[in-house]
Amino acid sequence: MLFLCLSGTPNSLAKGFEDRCRWKIVKPITKIFPDGEQYLKLPDLETQDVVVIQSLYPDQDRKIIELYLALEAVNGSGAKTKFVILPYTAYSRQDKRFLKGEPISVRALYLNLKLLGVDTIVTVDVHSIQSLSSLGFKVFNIMPHTYMLNTINEKIDLVLAPDKGALPRAKEVAKNLDIPYDYIDKFRDRVTGEIKIDQKELNVNGMSIAIVDDIISTGGTIAKAAQALYQSGAKSVIAVVTHSLISSKSIEVLSSANIDKLVTANTINLSIDLPKWIYVIDISKHICDEITKWVPC
Amino acid sequence: MLFLCLSGTPNSLAKGFEDRCRWKIVKPITKIFPDGEQYLKLPDLETQDVVVIQSLYPDQDRKIIELYLALEAVNGSGAKTKFVILPYTAYSRQDKRFLKGEPISVRALYLNLKLLGVDTIVTVDVHSIQSLSSLGFKVFNIMPHTYMLNTINEKIDLVLAPDKGALPRAKEVAKNLDIPYDYIDKFRDRVTGEIKIDQKELNVNGMSIAIVDDIISTGGTIAKAAQALYQSGAKSVIAVVTHSLISSKSIEVLSSANIDKLVTANTINLSIDLPKWIYVIDISKHICDEITKWVPC
Repeated sequence: MLFLCLSGTPNSLAKGFEDRCRWKIVKPITKIFPDGEQYLKLPDLETQDVVVIQSLYPDQDRKIIELYLALEAVNGSGAKTKFVILPYTAYSRQDKRFLKGEPISVRALYLNLKLLGVDTIVTVDVHSIQSLSSLGFKVFNIMPHTYMLNTINEKIDLVLAPDKGALPRAKEVAKNLDIPYDYIDKFRDRVTGEIKIDQKELNVNGMSIAIVDDIISTGGTIAKAAQALYQSGAKSVIAVVTHSLISSKSIEVLSSANIDKLVTANTINLSIDLPKWIYVIDISKHICDEITKWVPC
Repeated sequence: MLFLCLSGTPNSLAKGFEDRCRWKIVKPITKIFPDGEQYLKLPDLETQDVVVIQSLYPDQDRKIIELYLALEAVNGSGAKTKFVILPYTAYSRQDKRFLKGEPISVRALYLNLKLLGVDTIVTVDVHSIQSLSSLGFKVFNIMPHTYMLNTINEKIDLVLAPDKGALPRAKEVAKNLDIPYDYIDKFRDRVTGEIKIDQKELNVNGMSIAIVDDIISTGGTIAKAAQALYQSGAKSVIAVVTHSLISSKSIEVLSSANIDKLVTANTINLSIDLPKWIYVIDISKHICDEITKWVPC
């Protein structure tokens, strides 16, 4: 088995797969033509079984096209690639026709992978497993929150999800740590948008709290929640978020809200300088361990 | 029948379809999410038959993804879109596995259109019809050179292709104008790359010459050819090229070579200011007339 890492794969993740999991990593030669089109050439594939690894952020469209090109090239080389690892799956939030006239983006973009021979997608904390499995893929969705918290050895008293939809994620983490969980959105004033924790319903006084979520982008939601929690006496608030699509601006937002730590996974390339309170956890070993439960690597 | 113009469709082409062909043009609402993903929402489609029009340059990857999203949205709205018009088809030059390990990009990217219900592609001067028809599409390839020359009413004595591969294009134009044709590359010194017209084999003295090609990008090939033709006594040299992927730099290259005119089609959005000697010909009517020969609009 050979693992073909495309350009979206974070270096630290590829290195983790190589050093910690002993996976044989190869990379294609890539370039951009003067007209802007991508070019790609695979190395000699010495084996028949290839796993393609691509993270689909940033420049989602470019990364998706690169994935299609790589899969076609693998097929054309006589090898097989039934199995892709997508640490971050783009366009996964548009998984329903929310309004008339909208596309189901997941369907528009991922069905092509089936055409290119893929039957199994390994991903990390995808927005909706069902959106991919309904297209006929076997989907393995790896949840890294507990692994990340164990890695930094953080003591937590309470796990909070930002909203009700994210509650199952909080529940799973809380179950593993044997601590209580809840969600923040129920304390939001529907008119003003302000969050005010009802101390009778949720006592956060003196507690170390982890807000867990799948994606952090502007940082606004988590920052507001942290402020409200501190006002209600929380001792520390950390954010444990799988995919950090953050900019220097969102780092500032989190910093102003006195977030104690942002603990995040190396599912995407973060090309900005990070302050010390942002912990990027290498989850290569966790991915490998989870995969080995299902398929021999 | 309704024509859904996506963001790559040049405004002048959409306007031509509307005003000159009386096509009913609609456009989707589009935006870019903060994380860089595309969003699209179709207008109410009052009819069951929709033709999607998208030109796949510049930002080819983004335009391709937009096309996929639009087709999925059309399908989801209960309408049908079997028929797309792609005035410029991206990635069409990578239509073979030139080297081991390369993808057939056309296959990687266009097969998905079949999955999204498309069975017919109307395109303009595509690099290789066969690359699309071998995927199972009906392909209508519209050649605009004669139409463009007739539109500007240019008198030409000789048609030249840059190389042997482009000779059929020159032949067709020459046949329509009833004038001779040839190709330039046979006069190129294989070692120095210099072009020196052999006057015994090709007399260009005092002639008005049209160099015809499919794509102009850096302008280097045509500029070199023009210089050699002027040195051999050509009266005027014009370039008649379907798709102009030009920059201000390539305009300079062509200008220094004293190209008399660049005649090109409005198949792609040219967002730069163009000098007066570049003639962008609206080929909407030509596309419409050609299509009507095959299918009722």
